[in-house]
Amino acid sequence: KPQWELSMINSHFLYLLCFVPVGRCKAEWRPNNSPKLMDLLDDTVPGIGTYEDFNTIDWVREKSKDRDRHREIANKSKQSTVALLFSISDAFSGWLLMLLIGLMSGALAGGIDIAAHWMTDLKEGVCLNGFWFNHEHCCWASNETTFQERDKCPQWKSWAELMVGVSEGPGLYVVNYFMYVCWALLFAFLAVILVRAFAPYACGSGIPEIKTILSGFIIRGYLGKWTLIIKTITLVLAVSSGLSLGKEGPLVHVACCCANILCHFFTKYRRNEAKKREVLSAASAVGVSVAFGAPIGGVLFSLEEVSYYFPLKTLWRSFFAALVAAFTLRSINPFGNSRLVLFYVEFHTPWHLLELIPFVLLGIFGGLWGAFFIRANIAWCRLRKNTSLGHYPVLEVVVVTLLTALLAFPIEYTKMSSSELISELFNDCGLLDSSKLCGYTSNSGSTSGSVNATAANGLGARLAGPGLYTAMWQLALALVLKMVFTVVTFGMKVPSGLFIPSMAVGAIAGRLLGVCMEQLAIRHHERDIFRGWCSPGADCITPGLYAMVGAAACLGGVTRMTVSLVVIMFELTGGLEYIVPLMAAAMTSKWVADALGRESIYEAHIRLNGYPFLEAKEEFRHKTLATDVMRPRRGDPPVSVLTESGMTVEEVERLIADTTYSGFPVVISQQSPRLVGFVLRRDLVISLENARRHQEGVVSMSPILFTECDPPMSPSAPPAVKLRSILDLSPFTVTVHTAMEIVVDIFRKLGLRQCLVIQNGRLLGIITKKDILKHMAQMANRDPDSILFN
Amino acid sequence: KPQWELSMINSHFLYLLCFVPVGRCKAEWRPNNSPKLMDLLDDTVPGIGTYEDFNTIDWVREKSKDRDRHREIANKSKQSTVALLFSISDAFSGWLLMLLIGLMSGALAGGIDIAAHWMTDLKEGVCLNGFWFNHEHCCWASNETTFQERDKCPQWKSWAELMVGVSEGPGLYVVNYFMYVCWALLFAFLAVILVRAFAPYACGSGIPEIKTILSGFIIRGYLGKWTLIIKTITLVLAVSSGLSLGKEGPLVHVACCCANILCHFFTKYRRNEAKKREVLSAASAVGVSVAFGAPIGGVLFSLEEVSYYFPLKTLWRSFFAALVAAFTLRSINPFGNSRLVLFYVEFHTPWHLLELIPFVLLGIFGGLWGAFFIRANIAWCRLRKNTSLGHYPVLEVVVVTLLTALLAFPIEYTKMSSSELISELFNDCGLLDSSKLCGYTSNSGSTSGSVNATAANGLGARLAGPGLYTAMWQLALALVLKMVFTVVTFGMKVPSGLFIPSMAVGAIAGRLLGVCMEQLAIRHHERDIFRGWCSPGADCITPGLYAMVGAAACLGGVTRMTVSLVVIMFELTGGLEYIVPLMAAAMTSKWVADALGRESIYEAHIRLNGYPFLEAKEEFRHKTLATDVMRPRRGDPPVSVLTESGMTVEEVERLIADTTYSGFPVVISQQSPRLVGFVLRRDLVISLENARRHQEGVVSMSPILFTECDPPMSPSAPPAVKLRSILDLSPFTVTVHTAMEIVVDIFRKLGLRQCLVIQNGRLLGIITKKDILKHMAQMANRDPDSILFN
Repeated sequence: KPQWELSMINSHFLYLLCFVPVGRCKAEWRPNNSPKLMDLLDDTVPGIGTYEDFNTIDWVREKSKDRDRHREIANKSKQSTVALLFSISDAFSGWLLMLLIGLMSGALAGGIDIAAHWMTDLKEGVCLNGFWFNHEHCCWASNETTFQERDKCPQWKSWAELMVGVSEGPGLYVVNYFMYVCWALLFAFLAVILVRAFAPYACGSGIPEIKTILSGFIIRGYLGKWTLIIKTITLVLAVSSGLSLGKEGPLVHVACCCANILCHFFTKYRRNEAKKREVLSAASAVGVSVAFGAPIGGVLFSLEEVSYYFPLKTLWRSFFAALVAAFTLRSINPFGNSRLVLFYVEFHTPWHLLELIPFVLLGIFGGLWGAFFIRANIAWCRLRKNTSLGHYPVLEVVVVTLLTALLAFPIEYTKMSSSELISELFNDCGLLDSSKLCGYTSNSGSTSGSVNATAANGLGARLAGPGLYTAMWQLALALVLKMVFTVVTFGMKVPSGLFIPSMAVGAIAGRLLGVCMEQLAIRHHERDIFRGWCSPGADCITPGLYAMVGAAACLGGVTRMTVSLVVIMFELTGGLEYIVPLMAAAMTSKWVADALGRESIYEAHIRLNGYPFLEAKEEFRHKTLATDVMRPRRGDPPVSVLTESGMTVEEVERLIADTTYSGFPVVISQQSPRLVGFVLRRDLVISLENARRHQEGVVSMSPILFTECDPPMSPSAPPAVKLRSILDLSPFTVTVHTAMEIVVDIFRKLGLRQCLVIQNGRLLGIITKKDILKHMAQMANRDPDSILFN
Repeated sequence: KPQWELSMINSHFLYLLCFVPVGRCKAEWRPNNSPKLMDLLDDTVPGIGTYEDFNTIDWVREKSKDRDRHREIANKSKQSTVALLFSISDAFSGWLLMLLIGLMSGALAGGIDIAAHWMTDLKEGVCLNGFWFNHEHCCWASNETTFQERDKCPQWKSWAELMVGVSEGPGLYVVNYFMYVCWALLFAFLAVILVRAFAPYACGSGIPEIKTILSGFIIRGYLGKWTLIIKTITLVLAVSSGLSLGKEGPLVHVACCCANILCHFFTKYRRNEAKKREVLSAASAVGVSVAFGAPIGGVLFSLEEVSYYFPLKTLWRSFFAALVAAFTLRSINPFGNSRLVLFYVEFHTPWHLLELIPFVLLGIFGGLWGAFFIRANIAWCRLRKNTSLGHYPVLEVVVVTLLTALLAFPIEYTKMSSSELISELFNDCGLLDSSKLCGYTSNSGSTSGSVNATAANGLGARLAGPGLYTAMWQLALALVLKMVFTVVTFGMKVPSGLFIPSMAVGAIAGRLLGVCMEQLAIRHHERDIFRGWCSPGADCITPGLYAMVGAAACLGGVTRMTVSLVVIMFELTGGLEYIVPLMAAAMTSKWVADALGRESIYEAHIRLNGYPFLEAKEEFRHKTLATDVMRPRRGDPPVSVLTESGMTVEEVERLIADTTYSGFPVVISQQSPRLVGFVLRRDLVISLENARRHQEGVVSMSPILFTECDPPMSPSAPPAVKLRSILDLSPFTVTVHTAMEIVVDIFRKLGLRQCLVIQNGRLLGIITKKDILKHMAQMANRDPDSILFN
């Protein structure tokens, strides 16, 4: 039996261990054994280096593993051509993976868009030419469609026409109402049943969990194939049911599922949790890219909002994947306009500096809405969690859907899908627009003579007509409904995103304010304040722009996105011109929302669910020291340690059974607690089991050795279990005097799980990620005033 | 005299030190002294906590200082309204600073643009209406300008017309030639003389130095007001002289100078090197934003290319500053087209998938050019450094300018400024274009009958005419000249950027390839390969797009930018449509260039100049351990340490005099080297001087104490110098077994200057940033094959 059987350490390492003056003994070592034994070790003790469910990964170890892999491939590639080719293919496998993720996510997003569009229309009627056509597609092909009434054609039959045969009157309305509610209930019921039965992880938006996973947590199955399948199907159902939810957040989850599944085909990514997380970061960029057709915005969203470890290499790859996905989606062309973007907007009127005032007002509204939404939603979710409400998720979904459908049908702006609504609100009124929002009176000079001047764009002064007044109060009603239902919907057991509902709330508010501003400017164009820039008859205020600014403000208030938000909105319009209003609103919104509560909705849900997530954005500002946080606390018994020699298998097993710690420091001796290394509980358990099973003569009294060389032993003693190979010889240490702000920084930046606390070389305690999170929560509760100092 | 005079540590801290079981003694402590003493300390020992020139900052200490400042303000703000207002103004001062930087940089960039435009035209002639008009402006105001010859008007006189009176013939040419060369020489001479006399730091592009500064190095005066003034003036002169250089890199330097100067007005940023670097990161985004009119691209450039420490908060502020700067520039409107961007491009023809082949070819060309340029330029700079060439910088500039001017004048495309050239090359030929590049024959059916079909856009099949042929060979000549002169110019003692020259090289190559492809498609439109997408007469290939892709490829090859490059180019065109070709070219270019040499031009110059820059992108892949890198090496005498008690002032002063280390570890005793803390040489020197000068009774035999409590002393002994306040009690430590890849990671991510190496609690050595850089250079030389594994 070779002496170094369990040794993972290579020749150079051993040389250092044993021959440099720092070592404490000298041992003979046979270099030819090393590579073989390394492989042996990989095979003999399988579980070592893996993680249990709901545990945190060790970023440092994972990255080291990847570097070892690289080194091995690089060394081999010098030996043969095949190995060289393999090394090249390995280097490019990352790009291939990105390509595949882009293609798959783009295709799935396209499918979801088409299916959701069709099923949304199914609630109203069916196409006689083929039930698989949606309303627009059905009438597009028809010759009898007139330009004025684009959405009316004989092929498209509402349910009332089909079932009862009536084509007008209250009967038509009642039957259509009934069918609308029925379909909505059916879709929602199917969605929640499927989620409950096959993939409980498919509910919600998924972004809080993905943030947690990216920060290094393991949730098995959260990104699995069942989640993917069920989430894709139920997302279509949930969106079609007319509930106040969007598909943007869940698309990020879908893209991450694709990435995780595709990772299985690449050893490099399958075996390494850190590398996998790089890919998942790119996948979340892909998700936003396909959701909004905004690849740059998607990458920045991933960087700003969800990612934890985001090296520059990932930035470039994310961008590539996001582009591939966007172009895949475009070639599927689900919106039928061969545009990349969800809401294509083109404005013609520049904005005036004075308009920044209403834009800032919209920002304030967005911030207030964000803060209100987060508090209300968290309160509601807490209620669901703590009361019996949580026991009836299916009933909850059905009741909310019923209420939503009942209240939504009578109002035009809630009946249509949220994305259609946003699209209409963003739209600038053209000459030929038939929407009620463009129900202006023509320039009949009704109020003053000067209005008669016809503006260059063919529209006169756009005085509000009766159509617009109706639209206004309907929008106001829709605003209230959307706000209430969004609060109640987010967090139910169906896939639900809140990008679109938040944007809808903001767009409605913005459009309302925009129309008010417009009418104000027209009616008071002679006032000093308007005279300079808003001459009579000119089309000086664009209500669509206000809707867009409002949407950005509300989305910003809820998610606290900044750069990515502005870039996503910029990609929707494609003009740098409108960045300044968007930025003003986004900044105001974030400031107002931050002043009322520090957390974004995702962080609030992470905290609600108690995930171990160490926020990278928030700075730790309290003047505590490592010694305040470390375990054991003053008065507690000293920290449980192993000694590098002198303990038996039985003693160690008893220690494992008595404690629940996930790792143990190894010291020279109990009397002189000088730190030697750190060993993980899981590795220890697996190694001991393995030794008991496969190593000859191991009994309870066998000594356990973490030393690099054997101490002299009597020949009759049972053989020692040598565990130096599972010992982490370079655990991270801080001193008792280290400020917690620095400790937090180290944990965040290096991705640690635990850190040992020493003083003058003596081991005194240990700080884990959970200790830090607990401490941070305590300090935040003690000092809630610090929110101003961002 | 209070016992804790030099103590900076606050009550909580002291409590922990002395009363928790980890302490080794107990001392009485008077809480009411603490705040007063803290202030005292700040006043009494001024130099502590500052840095010397050409030193590296300690990021951890700087960030801690900032957090302390925050805490103090937050605590005070609870006490009075004035303090609350102050705290709010402090919180918003960052935004105000960003606004000011944006305004100042935008205004300066506008001024530089206008001045450079005017002076470039001054080489050719002068406006009679007023010498301050440039050519375009002069003729724009004239009534006699015809549409066909926009640049000819009687008010604009060439020098020959003015001085000799001839208006045609060879005399005109010779006099104009002579005047062109004279003006070029004058401008270049002035530029180099000003740089030499007033601000030697104003030369070059400044980006390598800014990268180094941002990574934590101190170069006093590099961002000072003299550098700003001289760089602004000489940049205009250098650009106008017609040398092959651009103003984009130097604009980053100018913006950083603005930021640094404006930082002086804000205590928060003036006093903290880490906070100042956050602002400088934002300023480099501003620089690119005004250079290209691409705010998003600028932010990504800062993130990807120059910044070292870039928290998300800085991302948002950079974006704000970049936008303010871009809009300031636009309101100055130096290009006269009220566009934000330098080269506004609008293409109408979509590209075909097959065109990816020439795009990838352009990428390969760009990569080759990048690798060639870097090698050639570094070789040239090395020559300048090592031979007597470096002693005559003025002569060098004059000679290069003379050669450039002599060779550039006869060729149209080198005579015009590089940015005009790029603009013309990017341009798609319209119906009314008079440029020689659009010298196509009209559709006369000269080769085949089918060409007669007139395309929808009014242009027939665009067969090359004689004008285009002339343009082609002139471009080819210009390509060679540009390549040679760019290599020689970059690195001379004038401000010089290489964005524009690199882009010019790529644009010429791209346009050449584009025209070839176009002619190929027209002449062989019946071939299978073109039949599907390039029907006869259709305008299926856009040479301007090729020029743009080529420019991106060459810029990418030289700078190795990825995302930021694509986003900058995207912002120039404003259409997502053309991102895919740009991305394909940028990716190919980077791969090809990386295969030929790992470093970008900036990194190469950093290495050439020997700046201590720890590259954050490159991973360290060698399997060495901390013990291989630490000092002292095996066989050397042990590391120089201080003991926490028992040393006298004299001993310490002798140790300081005998060594050049910038800091010393403090241990319990020489026999038991258990680490207590780390003290910086500068702090130690200042404190000892201070003690000798201001503390009564300090003599050479006075003991120096780093302990928290006084050991018992005889009353006759000289008073002790207590230095615990300057002791860093939480130095970073690693073990001897720590892999160097982890050590490098820690240095990069936490921004350390040094790290102590311990084994089982015993101090064994120290690793500084310079040791790491030296080690990395050694390893890179030993193993040059590792470049494939990016």
